[in-house]
Amino acid sequence: MRYKLTVAYDGSNYYGFQRQIKEVTVEEKLNEALFKIYKKPIKVVASGRTDRGVHALAQVVHFDTNIVIAKERLLKALNRSLPLDIRAIDVKVVDDNFHARFDAVKKTYRYVISSSYNLFERNYETYIGYPLNISKMEEGLKLFIGTHDYFGFTTYLKDKPTIKTIYNADLVLENNKIVITFTGDSFLRYMVRKMVGTLIDIGLGKKDPEIITTVFNTKDSSLCSKTASPNGLYLVEVFYS
Amino acid sequence: MRYKLTVAYDGSNYYGFQRQIKEVTVEEKLNEALFKIYKKPIKVVASGRTDRGVHALAQVVHFDTNIVIAKERLLKALNRSLPLDIRAIDVKVVDDNFHARFDAVKKTYRYVISSSYNLFERNYETYIGYPLNISKMEEGLKLFIGTHDYFGFTTYLKDKPTIKTIYNADLVLENNKIVITFTGDSFLRYMVRKMVGTLIDIGLGKKDPEIITTVFNTKDSSLCSKTASPNGLYLVEVFYS
Repeated sequence: MRYKLTVAYDGSNYYGFQRQIKEVTVEEKLNEALFKIYKKPIKVVASGRTDRGVHALAQVVHFDTNIVIAKERLLKALNRSLPLDIRAIDVKVVDDNFHARFDAVKKTYRYVISSSYNLFERNYETYIGYPLNISKMEEGLKLFIGTHDYFGFTTYLKDKPTIKTIYNADLVLENNKIVITFTGDSFLRYMVRKMVGTLIDIGLGKKDPEIITTVFNTKDSSLCSKTASPNGLYLVEVFYS
Repeated sequence: MRYKLTVAYDGSNYYGFQRQIKEVTVEEKLNEALFKIYKKPIKVVASGRTDRGVHALAQVVHFDTNIVIAKERLLKALNRSLPLDIRAIDVKVVDDNFHARFDAVKKTYRYVISSSYNLFERNYETYIGYPLNISKMEEGLKLFIGTHDYFGFTTYLKDKPTIKTIYNADLVLENNKIVITFTGDSFLRYMVRKMVGTLIDIGLGKKDPEIITTVFNTKDSSLCSKTASPNGLYLVEVFYS
């Protein structure tokens, strides 16, 4: 039987999602929790990785087991077995062909920027101490919508397709925070953080909004801005058809 | 010259305020920052300690130095030298007789209880998953106001005076949170957390509000409830005459 499991996590204390030999990762904690419950090694397959310090409100993984545990009991067992900074929020039996990564058709990411340093939220938002020109940022943001080659907005990834579609991108002001949301078919490594880094530079007046089109056209990643810090980034939702 | 320094800190990653041999504490980080700035050992004296995991919005310490650094520069230097979970929020030269502990006349503490588990706030509030009877809790809360013997609401403290005055105690509902605030002349070890622990049991219906008066009268700490967890507790303000 294949299970689809949805988890939220605070990425602050993890070296990202994907299992690593020396560092503590979310994937390892999920596999450990499943081992505690099922008493045999079970490996999760995720919709994609998230980097060190990046959070998730609803990451999706799948795993296989032939041991039947009722949904509510399994959810409780998972939350008892997982550390408090990783929470299972939903679990259900799915078709054997369901694949958390290959079947994902859309993802939503959110990035939170704050104009004040908030001690208790420092791991959950990115503090920018200089004024940001919001309308310039919005101008830049619109340029991401549609289908573009994001080769210049990622790190070198051998043979990975870099043409991506952003269906929706918006910016909302909430209190002293700027919340930027992107929904796209899929995202490359560091892509959202490089998009946001560039938007921050546009907001600071260091770059013009047109730089985005230039990076698309030239594929020159040296023209885009530095990768924004991970603490403001959230994987919000993974969509399946 | 004596300086009065006000700091805020996230207590999540510290073994409390007071210096310990093996564990990382806020006091140690403050002394280290002063050493970096003044290039000689300087020790802070605090208004009082806070326990492991307890936060402060405005803890007050004093320290002495004969090296003159202008206020704004000193504040910047402190925040450059301190870890990001400890922030210097004010510093000023005070009278040589000022004493952060002995001159404190009043302190305010806040305790935050949440009825929902919030992943990103788990270190900053205490989650209670069962319904709480607010009016019973308020009934109990009122009994703390005035002058009482808190021997039963602390751990054993040799020869420490246990008669304390609570000037103000209130409870406010904000979203799904209960925020309880106490202002008193001074507080004993675990006192606020034992007061809140008892209020939680009253809210849960496990105890009657009158238990508070009984603990005052009998001085029997076994009658009060278990110490509430530190993550919901904040030292909000220290008052000087």
